[in-house]
Amino acid sequence: MISKEDITQQFKVLQNSICESLEKEDGIAMFNTDAWNRPEGGGGISKILENGDLIEKGGVNFSSVYGKTPENIKKSFGYSSSNFYATGVSIVLHPKNPFVPIIHMNIRYFDMGSHWWFGGGIDLTPHYVDEVDASFFHRSLKEICDKHHDTFYYKFKKWADEYFFIKHRNETRGIGGIFFDRLNDSNLGDRDALFDFTIDVGKSFIPIYSKISNKSKQRNYTEGDRDWQMIRRGRYVEFNLVLDRGTKFGLETNGRIESILMSLPPLAAWKYNHHPEAGSPEYETQRLLVKDIDWIKK
Amino acid sequence: MISKEDITQQFKVLQNSICESLEKEDGIAMFNTDAWNRPEGGGGISKILENGDLIEKGGVNFSSVYGKTPENIKKSFGYSSSNFYATGVSIVLHPKNPFVPIIHMNIRYFDMGSHWWFGGGIDLTPHYVDEVDASFFHRSLKEICDKHHDTFYYKFKKWADEYFFIKHRNETRGIGGIFFDRLNDSNLGDRDALFDFTIDVGKSFIPIYSKISNKSKQRNYTEGDRDWQMIRRGRYVEFNLVLDRGTKFGLETNGRIESILMSLPPLAAWKYNHHPEAGSPEYETQRLLVKDIDWIKK
Repeated sequence: MISKEDITQQFKVLQNSICESLEKEDGIAMFNTDAWNRPEGGGGISKILENGDLIEKGGVNFSSVYGKTPENIKKSFGYSSSNFYATGVSIVLHPKNPFVPIIHMNIRYFDMGSHWWFGGGIDLTPHYVDEVDASFFHRSLKEICDKHHDTFYYKFKKWADEYFFIKHRNETRGIGGIFFDRLNDSNLGDRDALFDFTIDVGKSFIPIYSKISNKSKQRNYTEGDRDWQMIRRGRYVEFNLVLDRGTKFGLETNGRIESILMSLPPLAAWKYNHHPEAGSPEYETQRLLVKDIDWIKK
Repeated sequence: MISKEDITQQFKVLQNSICESLEKEDGIAMFNTDAWNRPEGGGGISKILENGDLIEKGGVNFSSVYGKTPENIKKSFGYSSSNFYATGVSIVLHPKNPFVPIIHMNIRYFDMGSHWWFGGGIDLTPHYVDEVDASFFHRSLKEICDKHHDTFYYKFKKWADEYFFIKHRNETRGIGGIFFDRLNDSNLGDRDALFDFTIDVGKSFIPIYSKISNKSKQRNYTEGDRDWQMIRRGRYVEFNLVLDRGTKFGLETNGRIESILMSLPPLAAWKYNHHPEAGSPEYETQRLLVKDIDWIKK
């Protein structure tokens, strides 16, 4: 059975390999590395890239934290253990070109002795929805899921639709993806099998984003396209600050603030009561920011 | 004793007079008016100005809502009544020039029959703290408070310091001001007296902001000053989406989203782990974003 040390090590290796690949994809910018310690135990490595050719601002975070279980963790999990261990990799990339989507990926492992689970997911937030890319994205995720369990894709796709939903705007954050949490079910696999699935999700990040970003990163854009990108980024901020459980949890547990908020965009805009003109590409995108689109069949 | 209808009427008159004055101050832009209805009872009038000469984006909202008391109002107030009535005026202005501060003002009246109270406040968020302006601002507020009760200024100034505090950044939103809530205490005055105080706070908005904005609105600024303004606006977004009770309440009670989020800036920025250079004006501003500065004595 894979140990928490091995899981941690493989997460760290994944962080490095993703950063190396992203630097190649970007071509000009390099990640800055910040190592930080958590006073109560453990710490993390934040890698941030700013003002790149592909990536305007992006972060690839690794952390492994442990110690006495904080009260609000006990409360939120409804399970009590005096000690905990948690490790994960978390990514958000804000591209420069409005035709390249924002992407988010996260994988995590949580351990309280006899009680452990995996969580994670990957979701895409295009400023302009490209239906071909959206289908490619979901097909790629389904392929990974299907290798591990035939219930995973539809279950975790639905979960992403529910989770990445901006209730007060009545719209999804983007075109979804997969999301899973507290994955520990012997019917679905033992710890080794569930780890294999989780790390496969992590490893899928580069090939998927590389294909999608390479398609559009050289595409010309106007000031109007850029304005729309800023508005979509504003919605991303709303989701992350109002709804994202990871962000809320980090802010409430006095986590490292710069690592938690690396997900925020370099620049974002809010216009009062803005509605795209009917029939415009912005309008078509908005129309697709709804739950339960089957991108496999589409 | 002043009736809720009279309070409502005076709040509405105040909204109009503030908007007229702001249009004159701005010189080029006009407010757009949106009237909206609350399906459960009442509604509001949102007035928004964008792309002005002084104001890049600002809103002056009036609302008067009533009906069956929502469950979460009962819960949060620890007092149960089947019907409620609430009216208020709420303002946030994001100026174009980084040397002109962001300002927020709100006055409100809440009524559940035998149980009623006033709330409100006014606070200033300079992108660059000007100590002369900060003292003028606080002295003006103290003057208004002192006319009504000699405990008001220091009590409500402290309340603002506590309320407008961005815990996760360990900094205040700006230089504070005054904040009060659930004001109903016969030792401090009857309903007429407390209304007089509340409406005086509202009426102080124009003379105070007019003086402060006129001082700096023609001042030249660099791209660097503007960059810093964007970062300070990012913190404003963090406060409003993560901490502001009014915003949270509005989002949770399915309020009119565009009126609630009119407080968000037209454009905001986030840089990873940004720290101004020691001794720079930005650094000096950051140093003053702390609680308990006595701007009267300063």
